[in-house]
Amino acid sequence: MTQNIYDDPGFFQGYSQMPRSIGGLDAAPEWPALKAMLPPIQGLKVVDLGCGYGWFCRLASEQGAGSVLGLDVSEKMLEQARKTTSAANIQYARADLEHLDLPTNSFDLAYSSLALHYIKDLPGLFGKIHAALKPGSRFVFSIEHPIFMAPRNPGWITDAEGRKSWPLDSYQMEGERVTNWLADGVIKQHRTIGTLLNALIAAGFTIQHVNEWGPSDTEVVAQPALAEERERPMMMLVGVQR
Amino acid sequence: MTQNIYDDPGFFQGYSQMPRSIGGLDAAPEWPALKAMLPPIQGLKVVDLGCGYGWFCRLASEQGAGSVLGLDVSEKMLEQARKTTSAANIQYARADLEHLDLPTNSFDLAYSSLALHYIKDLPGLFGKIHAALKPGSRFVFSIEHPIFMAPRNPGWITDAEGRKSWPLDSYQMEGERVTNWLADGVIKQHRTIGTLLNALIAAGFTIQHVNEWGPSDTEVVAQPALAEERERPMMMLVGVQR
Repeated sequence: MTQNIYDDPGFFQGYSQMPRSIGGLDAAPEWPALKAMLPPIQGLKVVDLGCGYGWFCRLASEQGAGSVLGLDVSEKMLEQARKTTSAANIQYARADLEHLDLPTNSFDLAYSSLALHYIKDLPGLFGKIHAALKPGSRFVFSIEHPIFMAPRNPGWITDAEGRKSWPLDSYQMEGERVTNWLADGVIKQHRTIGTLLNALIAAGFTIQHVNEWGPSDTEVVAQPALAEERERPMMMLVGVQR
Repeated sequence: MTQNIYDDPGFFQGYSQMPRSIGGLDAAPEWPALKAMLPPIQGLKVVDLGCGYGWFCRLASEQGAGSVLGLDVSEKMLEQARKTTSAANIQYARADLEHLDLPTNSFDLAYSSLALHYIKDLPGLFGKIHAALKPGSRFVFSIEHPIFMAPRNPGWITDAEGRKSWPLDSYQMEGERVTNWLADGVIKQHRTIGTLLNALIAAGFTIQHVNEWGPSDTEVVAQPALAEERERPMMMLVGVQR
């Protein structure tokens, strides 16, 4: 199964203190762009792959989703998620996305936030998501950007004038990247944008929208720390149709 | 109109000495990958946008294309292209791709090699290509990769161990990039991958294949200079269907 770093006590402790863990969707700078890619949720059967604390599940529930299934590999995450809601249309369940087992032709929307870069067999997962969705429905997700993930030494270089650049290398070498983010030895799977998109197409999806998220000028004024995100993308948001 | 750098004597002189100018398609390392994205050409009506010396036009002609229209903004290029063929199914014409004028519903294949990064109004051009193609037909092109084009200082950094990295910055700042490649002041248009793909989708195309070209191990053994192309992509190859 996938490394379950979220149940590592140190990692979980660090993660629980991140702005997006405390503040939810509105504390995630990419959320407005991701939200704009979603269909109206009223009445839809929704599945959230890697639901974490369940922020999106609760939003979907509040927006009148027919049902929301939040899946995560982390028991700790699910425990937190369950504590925060008693809504009748939400169900949380433990699932390893490497071995997903969903009923076919059952969902109107699949959603995933920053989880898919942990998955080894992404073509396999895409095939299962495609099968689980009803024809015409959407799959919208965010994933770490390959530019962010590829380098041997992922960190900024600052020049004499204080300008930052991101030393990219190893872009074509797909496979494991081990970083020490919140805990030592976090394993992610690097693949190129081409590989990612071709896997979606091979699974039967039609690409609808690709957003390599970066902040607007207004967002940089409000949160100056976001300025560096204009130099290289950290996330990709992708919307596809089944 | 687009800057016509190819008719600058210094640029043209430099360009005419590049391996791909002398050796044609087989001297372009990305050609096998691009070729694999093309349909069988026999009988097709083909348009080549930015045909240069006409290497692809002649191949399409030899492979039995119904007709081949090679378009380029450079008179010098077209002159060279015309000299090398007397095939009845090839026609060369001068065209500014910023103001393309093609008959609608007329072509079975649109092809373009490393020309589209010079175009300012790419959404407009995509719309015209879409209109010029017959339903179900393909548009296959290569373009400079945004990672290659974005930086203020596009050049390798080599560390103490001799390992190369590419200092990426300014990725989200779309617009002009001025480089001194073969001549001073060559103007290219940087846009993100997301912007490029979304413009194709908005024009009505379906994304079929995206290849951020990099060399195979065999290719690096045959041409060791290609090794650095594994560190960051220089080109994108894109195949879409009308």
